[in-house]
Amino acid sequence: MDPRTGQAVGEPIPESTEEQVAAIVEAAATAGRAWRAASAADRAAVLESVADALLASADDLWRAADTETALGEVRLRGEIGRSAGQFRLFAEVLRDGGYVDAIIDHADPGLTPPRPDIRRMNQPLPGVVGVFAASNFPFAFSVAGGDTASALAAGCAVVVKAHPGHPVLSELVATVVRRALPAPELLGLVQGADAGRYLVQHPSVAAVGFTGSIHGGQAIQRLINERPDPIPFYGELGSVNPVVVLPSALDGDVAALASGFAGSLTLGVGQFCTNPGLLFVPDDDTLIKAIADAVAATTGGPMLTPKIRDGYEEGVARLALGAVPLASGQDDALAGGVVAAGSGVTASGGATSGGVVSGGAMSGGAASGGAMSSSAAPGGALAGDISGIGDAVPQVFVTDMDNFAGRLPDLAEECFGPAALVVKYGDVSKVGDVLESLPGSLTATVHATDPAEAEQIVPVLTRLAGRVIWNGWPTGVAVCWAMHHGGPWPASTSPAHTSVGATAISRWLAPVAYQSWPEALLPLELRDANPLNVPRRVDGVR
Amino acid sequence: MDPRTGQAVGEPIPESTEEQVAAIVEAAATAGRAWRAASAADRAAVLESVADALLASADDLWRAADTETALGEVRLRGEIGRSAGQFRLFAEVLRDGGYVDAIIDHADPGLTPPRPDIRRMNQPLPGVVGVFAASNFPFAFSVAGGDTASALAAGCAVVVKAHPGHPVLSELVATVVRRALPAPELLGLVQGADAGRYLVQHPSVAAVGFTGSIHGGQAIQRLINERPDPIPFYGELGSVNPVVVLPSALDGDVAALASGFAGSLTLGVGQFCTNPGLLFVPDDDTLIKAIADAVAATTGGPMLTPKIRDGYEEGVARLALGAVPLASGQDDALAGGVVAAGSGVTASGGATSGGVVSGGAMSGGAASGGAMSSSAAPGGALAGDISGIGDAVPQVFVTDMDNFAGRLPDLAEECFGPAALVVKYGDVSKVGDVLESLPGSLTATVHATDPAEAEQIVPVLTRLAGRVIWNGWPTGVAVCWAMHHGGPWPASTSPAHTSVGATAISRWLAPVAYQSWPEALLPLELRDANPLNVPRRVDGVR
Repeated sequence: MDPRTGQAVGEPIPESTEEQVAAIVEAAATAGRAWRAASAADRAAVLESVADALLASADDLWRAADTETALGEVRLRGEIGRSAGQFRLFAEVLRDGGYVDAIIDHADPGLTPPRPDIRRMNQPLPGVVGVFAASNFPFAFSVAGGDTASALAAGCAVVVKAHPGHPVLSELVATVVRRALPAPELLGLVQGADAGRYLVQHPSVAAVGFTGSIHGGQAIQRLINERPDPIPFYGELGSVNPVVVLPSALDGDVAALASGFAGSLTLGVGQFCTNPGLLFVPDDDTLIKAIADAVAATTGGPMLTPKIRDGYEEGVARLALGAVPLASGQDDALAGGVVAAGSGVTASGGATSGGVVSGGAMSGGAASGGAMSSSAAPGGALAGDISGIGDAVPQVFVTDMDNFAGRLPDLAEECFGPAALVVKYGDVSKVGDVLESLPGSLTATVHATDPAEAEQIVPVLTRLAGRVIWNGWPTGVAVCWAMHHGGPWPASTSPAHTSVGATAISRWLAPVAYQSWPEALLPLELRDANPLNVPRRVDGVR
Repeated sequence: MDPRTGQAVGEPIPESTEEQVAAIVEAAATAGRAWRAASAADRAAVLESVADALLASADDLWRAADTETALGEVRLRGEIGRSAGQFRLFAEVLRDGGYVDAIIDHADPGLTPPRPDIRRMNQPLPGVVGVFAASNFPFAFSVAGGDTASALAAGCAVVVKAHPGHPVLSELVATVVRRALPAPELLGLVQGADAGRYLVQHPSVAAVGFTGSIHGGQAIQRLINERPDPIPFYGELGSVNPVVVLPSALDGDVAALASGFAGSLTLGVGQFCTNPGLLFVPDDDTLIKAIADAVAATTGGPMLTPKIRDGYEEGVARLALGAVPLASGQDDALAGGVVAAGSGVTASGGATSGGVVSGGAMSGGAASGGAMSSSAAPGGALAGDISGIGDAVPQVFVTDMDNFAGRLPDLAEECFGPAALVVKYGDVSKVGDVLESLPGSLTATVHATDPAEAEQIVPVLTRLAGRVIWNGWPTGVAVCWAMHHGGPWPASTSPAHTSVGATAISRWLAPVAYQSWPEALLPLELRDANPLNVPRRVDGVR
C-alpha cells in the first residue's frame, strides 16, 4: 500500500504457509553448515559483495521503498548507504578477529590440581537466526538490516519475517542480497503474521532478533516461551527517551535547544525508536515559549501504516487525558506541502559510520505560535483529509512534576510518532527521584552548560538507559565500534546486547572451549602461532 | 540431615516468608547502590578479603559441610580452596579491567553524517542478582560459589536461595562472607522453595543464576516468564557429556582409558554435572572387558539427598529398560568401606586455578568382574541397608548403535549419579549422525591417537557442547580465563555464557554508551588519559 494514497500497489504478496516456512528454515540450516565453516576472511568478502550489490541497485531499491513507505528519495538513499555501511563494518569486524574473544590458558602441571591447556573462542550459534523486520527503517532494520548483517557475519544463516508495511520491497532486497551470497538459501524470507509464529517455533532456529513495539515483542517472547528450548530473543522495543534540561542550560542558546528538540522529535514523522518523548525542563517561561514556537514551526506527514497512525492517535489521546497541549506542528497535507517525511535526513553514503543526523530535519513553515485548545488535541488536527492514510501532525503537551509523578506509568509510555510531553520542574533535586521511577529507555539525554550540575543524576541515567547523551539529541544512532543501542526493559529484552554497531555480532555467538586439543584440529584463531593475528588473551595477559 | 545416618542434625531452619524475602532483596538493592559506585580496585580488595575469610574459617566450614553432605574432609577443604580461588580470580579480573570491554570512537566531523564522540563500557546490571545454590558443591556452586563471586565482582548485590541439602552450612558461609563485605546486606540468604519463587519475581531482581536439574531450571524459567520484564536467567542444567572413543584409541593404553572413564564416572558418587554418561566405543571385546573390569573396581557411597538418590534409581531403571547391564561397582556400605564419597578429589588449596582433578578418584576395592544380572539392576544393589539414605552403586549399561538411535531421546537423558551407557558402534562413519541427534551438553570428549580420525566429527562436537576435550575426562573444570562451562540447551539456558572462569562476570554486566559526554563525568575507564590502564579499542584499534 502507498501511504500517500492509501491505495494498494502491485500484486498481493501471498502469506507463507507452515510447510513453506519449514522448508525455508531447513534449507537455510543446511546452507548454514558450509557458511559456519567458512573462514572469517571469506565471510568478510561476501559481506562486502552484499554492500556493493545494495549500492548498485540503489535506484531500483529506493523507488520500491518509497512506494510502500513514502519516506522519500533522500532519506531512502541515505538508508541504503547506511545498510551497505553496516555490511562493510562487519567485514572489518571479521578481519580484525577480536569478535571471537580468543583466550588461551596454557597447561600448568605445577598447579594443584594441574591445569590442562584450555583455549576458548566464540563460534556461531548452532542454528538459523530468525529476524523480524521493522517498519520504520525499510533497509537498515529490515531484510538487509543490522540483524541480518551481524548474523551473517557471525556465521549463521538467516530467515527474515518481512514487515507487512513493505512486502514487495522485502522480496526485492532479498533477491539483491542473495545474488552476492554463496548460496541463496542463506537468506530466507517469509511473509505473514502466522509465518512469524512458525519461524520462532521451528527447532532449527537458534535465536531471534526483532525491532518493533513492546506489544509485538511480548507476543514473540510468549511464542518462544512455548518452545522446549529457551532460545535467546533479542528484541529492541519501546523507549520514551527522556531528556533532562538542567537549569544551567538556560545560560546557553535557548532557541537552539528548542529547535533541536523539535527537529529530533519530528524527524521522519517521529517514527524513530530514539525519538525524544519526554522533556524535563525548569519552569521557565522563555524556554517553554521557545519550545512551543519551535514545535509550531514543524510539519507533519504521512505515517508508515494505518496501524502506526492509529497507535499515534491513541498515544496522543493518552497524553491529552493527563496533560495540557502546548503546541502542534503544521499538517503537511492540509498546508499542501510537498516535504516528504524525513526528507531532512542527510544521506549517509557508503561510510561504515553512516547514521541519521540528529537535529537536521526542521521542515520549513511559518510558526503558528501558542497552544492549541485542549479539546482540539486528540482528534481533528491529526489526520489530513486529502492524504491516503492520514498525515500525522506533531503534538507537544505540558504538565508539572507532581501531576506527572502521579500519573505514572501512563504519562511515561512511548507514543510512537511526533508527540512529546514537557514536564516542568521547580526543584531540580527532585528530578533524580522521578527519573528512578521511569521505565528503561534506549537513551537518556542531559542538557547543561555545567557538568557538575549533572553529577547527582548521572548514576540514575546510566541505570535507566543504554546510551546517555550530552547536549545532543537521541535520534541518530552512529554505526561504529562503540555504539550501544539497547537498554533495560522495555527498551530491549536483553540489556547486555545492542542491535547497532560492531558488538551486535555477539548476539549470534557462543564460546567453545578446547581442552588439550590437538593443534591440527584447533581453529586458526587459537593456534599457538596466531596465523590470523587476532587479538588474544594468553595466560591472563592481553 | 546427615546423609550417612539419615538423621536430622541441629535445629530446623525456618523457611523465609514473602515479607522476609522482600525485605532482604530491598536491603540488598539499597546496599547495592554504593557497591555499584565503588571502584573496581575497591571491589577487588573486598573480594580478596572474602577469600581470606573463607580460608581462615576452613576448619569450621568443612565440618559443617561434611555433616550435611558426607563429602569428606579432603574434598571439602579442596572445595573451600577452589571457592576462595574464584574470589581471587575475579579480583584479578577487576584489576585487569578488560571485563568492562571499553571502546572509544572519537568524534569525526568529516564523516557523512558527522559522527559524535561515543564511548562504551560495561556497567553492573541495575538490580540485585538472585542465585540458586546447587547441592553437589556446597562451597563452589553455593552461597560463596562462582555465581556469587562473579556477581559481587560485577558490582551487584546478591541474594542466594540456599539449597535445602545444606541449610545450616549456608547460614554459616553467609556469616563468614558478610564479615568481609562493606555492608552485610550485599549478600542476602533466603531458605525454602517458596522463597525461591518470591526471589525471582521480585521487581528489584535484575538477573538469576542457577545450577541444578533441567526440571528445576524449567520451573524457574516459568516463574521468570510470569514477570512483566524478561530478566536474564543463567541456568546450568543437565548434561550427558558424551565421550567418543575412536578406533585409533585402541592402539593406546586401553586399561588406562577404561580406568580413566570409571574414575571420572564415579568421582564424588557421580554427582558432577560433567560426569561422562555416554561412551561411544568400537565394538571391541578387549576394550569392553577393560571397561567392565574398571567399573567393577569402583565403590559407591552415600548420595547427597534422598531426592537425588531417588532420581538416580529412576535414571538407572530407565537405562535398564533400554540397555543391558555391563558392570556395577561395589556398595561401599555393604562392603563396610570407609572411603568417603569423593575422597579421591585432590585438594586445590588457594590457587585461582583450583579445580577438581579428573580421573583421580578410583576407590580401592577388588574387581567383581562380569555383568550383574539384568533383573538385579534397578533395585537391590542400589541401596545399602545399613546406610542412612542409601548408598548409590556405580552402574554401567551397554547397547549397540541401532538400539541407541532407536531409543532417543530416552537413552540420552542425563542420569545424575555414577551411571553410564556404553554404545558400541561398528561403522565409525555413523557416529557423527548419532551425535547430531543428541541434546546439548556441557562437554564432549574424544579419545584417539590420530587427530585426523576426528576431523569429521569436530564440527558436530563444537555445535553439541560448550567444551570439547581431547584424550581426557570431563570432570574437573579449571577455574581460569579461558574456561567455558556452558553449552546448548539443556546444558544451559544461555549458551553464550559460562558459570565458571573469568568470563562468568559478563552475565551480570550490560554496556552503557556515553555520547559527547564531558570528560569530568566519564568513568575513569573511558577518559582519554586511561588512568586505570585498562585494555581498550580506540577508533577501531585495540
